[in-house]
Amino acid sequence: MSRVAIQDQYPDEFSHCYGCGRLNRHGLHIRSYWEGDEAVATFAPTAYQIAVPGFVYGGLIASLLDCHGIAAAAAAQLQAEGRTIGDGPVPRFVTAALRIDYLKPTPLGPDLEIRGRPKALQGRKVIVDVSLAAEGVLCARGELIAAQMPESMNLGHGRP
Amino acid sequence: MSRVAIQDQYPDEFSHCYGCGRLNRHGLHIRSYWEGDEAVATFAPTAYQIAVPGFVYGGLIASLLDCHGIAAAAAAQLQAEGRTIGDGPVPRFVTAALRIDYLKPTPLGPDLEIRGRPKALQGRKVIVDVSLAAEGVLCARGELIAAQMPESMNLGHGRP
Repeated sequence: MSRVAIQDQYPDEFSHCYGCGRLNRHGLHIRSYWEGDEAVATFAPTAYQIAVPGFVYGGLIASLLDCHGIAAAAAAQLQAEGRTIGDGPVPRFVTAALRIDYLKPTPLGPDLEIRGRPKALQGRKVIVDVSLAAEGVLCARGELIAAQMPESMNLGHGRP
Repeated sequence: MSRVAIQDQYPDEFSHCYGCGRLNRHGLHIRSYWEGDEAVATFAPTAYQIAVPGFVYGGLIASLLDCHGIAAAAAAQLQAEGRTIGDGPVPRFVTAALRIDYLKPTPLGPDLEIRGRPKALQGRKVIVDVSLAAEGVLCARGELIAAQMPESMNLGHGRP
């Protein structure tokens, strides 16, 4: 398992993401690690990131699966190029589609366990199965379609 | 168009949602209004809610579509019961599934225009078409399956 977080290898100009950018001071700082065929992450929600008292907010779950799935896509792309996490900048993907089934209410308290398994590389796209569990119980699962970032999104400026 | 926000009619114990709860001091405070056959909302992202500089964070878009779609489902259920927003507590739905297609990068700057149109009431579920636009340009669209909140989520305590 790589001890370098995938998101920490994004180029500086693409490291401002609210979900996972190391340069976003206000963000969630999601950190994903590559384990050879899937990415793994853990996340500890804060007390106010809830839907109703005692249960984690679904929009946070979507955010976690989004940034984590994007990282998994980037790692799969790197691996397909014969590279490894830590050997240089990681390609930046964006989300083309996200589908989530919320299977059970996600309890607030335990660390959340997030997995992303790339299952297909199709040109500029990578399709990733994503899931989120709490104490080993699967709470949400879905699929993310990641696309390599279009050049139109590289404005080359800005810092939150 | 009702001038009472749907979310402001949720019972107190279900008004702590990070996305739309009036009692969550840290939350996004999404506010949705019913227009007879669809719910509408606007939202102004802050400078740090971005994916890359200049473009809105996809996890925020998911959060907006989620809370807004849930509000639309609740309003449709009320209307089916012959009630109107403002005449008493609104039933609390939760998200069973959320599918989003991100059609274009969403620019940071203009207010976001969010719509939710319920298209089917099926027992305890409501299916809602959701969309998000900026300056009239459709940036994301999707579908939400809302389910009436199971009794197991009513812990009857907690305040973020």
